[in-house]
Amino acid sequence: MSVTAPRGFRAAGVGCGIKPAGPDLALVAGDSGCSAAAVFTTNRAQAAPVLVSRAHLAGARARAIVANSGCANAGTGERGLLDAREMARAAAVAVGCRPEEIVVASTGVIGVPLPIERVRAGIAEAGASLSREGGEAAARAILTTDTRPKQVALELRLADGTATIGAMAKGSGMIAPNMATLLAFFTTDVAIDGRLLQRALREAVGESLNRITIDGDTSTNDMAVVLASGGLPLPAILDEGDAFDAFRAALTEAARRLAAMIVRDGEGATRVAEVRVEGARHAGDADRIARTVAESPLVKTALAGGDPNWGRILAAVGRAGVDLAIERLDLFLGDVWVAEGGRARDYDETRARAALDEDPVRIRIRLGDGSAAGWIWTCDLSHGYVDINAHYRS
Amino acid sequence: MSVTAPRGFRAAGVGCGIKPAGPDLALVAGDSGCSAAAVFTTNRAQAAPVLVSRAHLAGARARAIVANSGCANAGTGERGLLDAREMARAAAVAVGCRPEEIVVASTGVIGVPLPIERVRAGIAEAGASLSREGGEAAARAILTTDTRPKQVALELRLADGTATIGAMAKGSGMIAPNMATLLAFFTTDVAIDGRLLQRALREAVGESLNRITIDGDTSTNDMAVVLASGGLPLPAILDEGDAFDAFRAALTEAARRLAAMIVRDGEGATRVAEVRVEGARHAGDADRIARTVAESPLVKTALAGGDPNWGRILAAVGRAGVDLAIERLDLFLGDVWVAEGGRARDYDETRARAALDEDPVRIRIRLGDGSAAGWIWTCDLSHGYVDINAHYRS
Repeated sequence: MSVTAPRGFRAAGVGCGIKPAGPDLALVAGDSGCSAAAVFTTNRAQAAPVLVSRAHLAGARARAIVANSGCANAGTGERGLLDAREMARAAAVAVGCRPEEIVVASTGVIGVPLPIERVRAGIAEAGASLSREGGEAAARAILTTDTRPKQVALELRLADGTATIGAMAKGSGMIAPNMATLLAFFTTDVAIDGRLLQRALREAVGESLNRITIDGDTSTNDMAVVLASGGLPLPAILDEGDAFDAFRAALTEAARRLAAMIVRDGEGATRVAEVRVEGARHAGDADRIARTVAESPLVKTALAGGDPNWGRILAAVGRAGVDLAIERLDLFLGDVWVAEGGRARDYDETRARAALDEDPVRIRIRLGDGSAAGWIWTCDLSHGYVDINAHYRS
Repeated sequence: MSVTAPRGFRAAGVGCGIKPAGPDLALVAGDSGCSAAAVFTTNRAQAAPVLVSRAHLAGARARAIVANSGCANAGTGERGLLDAREMARAAAVAVGCRPEEIVVASTGVIGVPLPIERVRAGIAEAGASLSREGGEAAARAILTTDTRPKQVALELRLADGTATIGAMAKGSGMIAPNMATLLAFFTTDVAIDGRLLQRALREAVGESLNRITIDGDTSTNDMAVVLASGGLPLPAILDEGDAFDAFRAALTEAARRLAAMIVRDGEGATRVAEVRVEGARHAGDADRIARTVAESPLVKTALAGGDPNWGRILAAVGRAGVDLAIERLDLFLGDVWVAEGGRARDYDETRARAALDEDPVRIRIRLGDGSAAGWIWTCDLSHGYVDINAHYRS
């Protein structure tokens, strides 16, 4: 159930004192060089590890991922870049490769420099404890406000045998990946062309991690990376076709499972909701409306209270910036049709209230403007979110 | 200190049972017909009173405003339109004019029909109790989750004498007016051409009520209206010039005071902040960045906690969708320069923390991309906001 499930990977997670306590440094290493692909945050304020990893992955090859929690190494200027490169150098020594073969990732507080001596010691320790059983420890070492690790392993039937995809992620706040993602690391033992791997990752993320929002705040450090070891004695995927389609579907499924775990562990989350928009003119319109509803503080607090206050959903749809005919809008909470043609139906309030206790809560918005659809997962806005974020650095 | 401060206006506020208790119906009437102007919500889901009032104001004339709280008359379809027109008809009988001379406004829960019999009785009662002293009662009757009435009266020196502007507003949640506004009603005793009045209102609102955001949720019912009675024996303002400039400046000042009162009474607000962006390429860019920072849940919760977590401001700037060079960004909290060139400065944490206790908190973002600037006022996101909104309809 981890990044070490596929053949050809070892991992470790250690504590080196970036956080006051607990594990805070993860290393995931291929036994040899891997095909690699990644997508990064679209935030203009990109953290040093994002800049360094993007450069390192230019050749679509990598050997290992080193990631720390407790410090984002963002807003740290030139020193941040030196520190990120030093992380790569130390990890290269630990696993025996060139620094350019290392993917570097960081998550935590912005604007504080890394305690690089501790990080260097932690990387050496992690390198010495890499093992086939280390996936769980690595998954724990990348967490921040998460309350539990997030891991996936699934099998993938190909014509000539069965491959495996493993994955881990962190993320609980500052989550609105939108074109990139948070920290998510995938491993697989298939052999695949780097360009195809990049395409599979982009498509998988577009239908999973890019469709979650906890607070609308896109991070400076988001990154999703996949390493393909080719550790299985199977033919390499070098072209489009059945094998590529199967791999892409499996990668999407792994990414969706991680996405669901992240929303469920959203900061302070007590309810999870799926917002689905149908009948839009364009898919982009549907996505924009879904996101506006999912990020509305009024919708999210009503969700926290279990209040089927559909008028707030209507108001959020109306301010989404999409040209639409509100008099053709239908609205469903679970299976309860609460509004028709933009106005209240004579619905059963008790049933509508019960729809807010389903898991996930299903908010369905049907426009009468076309045939495009979109969806997003979100969670509620509760006291817990305020508690966690009012004093995050203290 | 109210809408009855200018000559030529009477007002009343009564309780007619739309809310469980308290005043919920306001009437503000000119002694005779007034020049009138209004701006309305840009939400595509427009409430019935918005549709009716826009039609009534097509001729830039009005006699009175009738407004209720406790029910937004939004998401109510054809019945909502009939009810809004019935409010106008009843108010026209009460003040002695045509229904088309009445501005109708509603605020409260969306998706619930008006108890029109009670409203009709309330309008008759309000009509019978109109007085020069009724401004305060009217200001109380339009409140929802507001904790206090919001009123302004100020004098305006013109070449030939002194005129007065009065105003009242309501608004505490679902506040992100953006191109229109919440419920705000202005009165004045100057005589002014309707077209100039519209222009003065639009410009005043653009520099005041459009620059506040409490939760980013633009309402279905937003409306700002100004009635000019011409009750003073002064020359009418029929052209641009000194008198128009003086009037516009005074109207802007009145609108700013209301805007400040609204943010200060934001749902659950414990701190108020001014976000100012300088050095942008375009004013639109500056406004967009200011709004993104002001609406970021992470920035707002840090504000609630008094935590000078400037990294979240940096992250919000980066995701605002504006093309900018983060390595030229400077950031100030109050007078403390916390980040320079996109990275942390060696600042005094105690002073930065003290800057979060100023009123308002001043967040200043200096880009190095141009000379345009923008600003917005906001409040924090506290437990109080969640409390108020988790069970708003219950």
